[in-house]
Amino acid sequence: MATVQEKALAISKEKHGKLEIRSKVEINSMDDLSVAYTPGVAAVCSAIAANKEDAYEYTSKRNLVAVVTDGSAVLGLGNIGPEAAIPVMEGKAILFKRFADVDAIPLSVNTQNVDEIVSHIAAFAPSFGGINLEDISAPRCFEVERRLKEILDIPVFHDDQHGTAIVVLAALYNAIKVTKKQLETVKIVINGGGAAGLSIADMLLAAGAKNIKVVDKIGILCEDDTSLPPHHLAMAKKTNREKQTGTLQDAVKGADVFVGVSAPGALKKEWVTTMADKAIIFAMANPTPEIFPEEAKEAGAYVIGTGRSDYPNQINNVLAFPGIFRGALDARAKDITLEMQLAAAKGLASIVTDDKLSPDYILPNAFEPNVSKVVAESVRGAVKK
Amino acid sequence: MATVQEKALAISKEKHGKLEIRSKVEINSMDDLSVAYTPGVAAVCSAIAANKEDAYEYTSKRNLVAVVTDGSAVLGLGNIGPEAAIPVMEGKAILFKRFADVDAIPLSVNTQNVDEIVSHIAAFAPSFGGINLEDISAPRCFEVERRLKEILDIPVFHDDQHGTAIVVLAALYNAIKVTKKQLETVKIVINGGGAAGLSIADMLLAAGAKNIKVVDKIGILCEDDTSLPPHHLAMAKKTNREKQTGTLQDAVKGADVFVGVSAPGALKKEWVTTMADKAIIFAMANPTPEIFPEEAKEAGAYVIGTGRSDYPNQINNVLAFPGIFRGALDARAKDITLEMQLAAAKGLASIVTDDKLSPDYILPNAFEPNVSKVVAESVRGAVKK
Repeated sequence: MATVQEKALAISKEKHGKLEIRSKVEINSMDDLSVAYTPGVAAVCSAIAANKEDAYEYTSKRNLVAVVTDGSAVLGLGNIGPEAAIPVMEGKAILFKRFADVDAIPLSVNTQNVDEIVSHIAAFAPSFGGINLEDISAPRCFEVERRLKEILDIPVFHDDQHGTAIVVLAALYNAIKVTKKQLETVKIVINGGGAAGLSIADMLLAAGAKNIKVVDKIGILCEDDTSLPPHHLAMAKKTNREKQTGTLQDAVKGADVFVGVSAPGALKKEWVTTMADKAIIFAMANPTPEIFPEEAKEAGAYVIGTGRSDYPNQINNVLAFPGIFRGALDARAKDITLEMQLAAAKGLASIVTDDKLSPDYILPNAFEPNVSKVVAESVRGAVKK
Repeated sequence: MATVQEKALAISKEKHGKLEIRSKVEINSMDDLSVAYTPGVAAVCSAIAANKEDAYEYTSKRNLVAVVTDGSAVLGLGNIGPEAAIPVMEGKAILFKRFADVDAIPLSVNTQNVDEIVSHIAAFAPSFGGINLEDISAPRCFEVERRLKEILDIPVFHDDQHGTAIVVLAALYNAIKVTKKQLETVKIVINGGGAAGLSIADMLLAAGAKNIKVVDKIGILCEDDTSLPPHHLAMAKKTNREKQTGTLQDAVKGADVFVGVSAPGALKKEWVTTMADKAIIFAMANPTPEIFPEEAKEAGAYVIGTGRSDYPNQINNVLAFPGIFRGALDARAKDITLEMQLAAAKGLASIVTDDKLSPDYILPNAFEPNVSKVVAESVRGAVKK
């Protein structure tokens, strides 16, 4: 039987990519042409020239998101360049359409210079209702996003950071409920100091978590370590208030929650036995998690999530980003704020009702109806008027 | 009854723009997700990382054209800016799809600085199989196109220039046949020294015309006039070898061919009576031509074309650009060369067979089958191997 990789290659080759541009209007006569193009179109142009905001009424801008990458941090493949990143961007684009009827177009930029990326993306912003950044390596991704958010009056969202963080927070809300723990008091260890790990830490802090340690390759991030790069030092100052030093093994002792956005097999079974009672483990390295669910369970973990679809509790960005943009676009929000992101996580968690909630069911499946609808409504409700 | 303008506004408002992004693959299960996105997509990325050219096999790049404008010269509306230009770009995009199955996406850039436009378009070239420039004002459009053609290894084509020129040349091939004149000897007057007029002059010269005068607001372009801007001086040196000076009225005396890309009513009826026998008039100002066909006919003109669909011989870019890009993309051409453009004009003219050719039928209707197919084949045949 063909593997998913073989199937993906075969489909991409047969169809030459996964998306197409379609007309929403019929063009079967000269009259149709006169309406869709000249001279009719001039009236539409004039309306927008008189009021720029009317682009949202009369054009695809209203529903069009650019999925932009520089190809520097693509999946686990690394810096493979703009062309090789296109298949991921196309995949993302069709998920936007499938799950939230958002029109999304892949755009690969051929530079990895932050100033240039920002300038090129901003230049084409008039066409778009939103910008989804994707697979841009840390720490450049932080700067690219921060500056675009400053410059542009349309939502800018780096899904690898915030999409992941939102789904993790939703999962954690329900895991905490099922374990009868408290977000404010649980001890959380995040393994992986990249874009996702840092964004997860920020989101959990914003949601009220108070005891977080972030562990990177060099060990637990601690503000006393003056050799830390600026983005790690900033995180160390917001977390690890005990200024613990040491390894991941040290960090997880007594921890309630392990969040892995790191590497296959990074969490040893014997370390899990040192965690607190009813431990929560989100092992999201993909496709091979930090620890497999069977092992984690044997070692005493109570709630286990992974990035995989063949285990319970798949922590998958597709639960969040389509609905987030749907809500932001519908509200014509100028930004996707922290409040909107927190609301998205709460909305996503709420889809799992108390009667269904269990250690093996803390997040809905991507194909459950209403996932993106509920997320979109939550996001829309949090837009500042 | 609603006018085309009212219909255009109503449709644009109802549908919020004229195009959407659609998936070509079904996503109805976790397995589908694994193929369309992670982990399956990694195999496609890796294939392209190993061989960048494989982006043409495995992604939408193969069939995706960016329709780019800066909003500086939109239809007859002028410099209305990037947002207000979107409806035209959308119209163009859906014509690409309707007539040649080319996927095209509107991109409006928010600068009118040539260096910046070139840099921004070039930056996103990895995503695209071709670039169609649109509604960029002269003389900036010449520089933007020239530099992009130098930098990029995908076709770059400014339709307002070359698309128009190709259709005019095709029309002229057949008008000359029906009047039994010779391209090499006919006296041609082009009224309008903008992007379209200059490009028409260049294309007719390349096709073998030897006696051309270009007339702009100041009169006949003549190389003795040292006050001409560089692009007009360059054209004056290639045309008007008699160094005639004077007005449009002077220029059309004895002329066989009038090509208008200028202003409503620019060609007076009484001037047409001074033209050569069996005069050919292409009055393309839109929607109000330089002279209406009834008047031109009364004044003795033999073949009359306009930009309008309600008169015979509509000279419409849609006859050319879809097939040109279809041919260039299918051949994976690195450029759309002059040879390819001349071949497109010949192919387009050939669609009108001798048994059907008449003064009122020198060009096919856009909806005749095979128009873009024949143009595409002609273009493909002219690609250098």
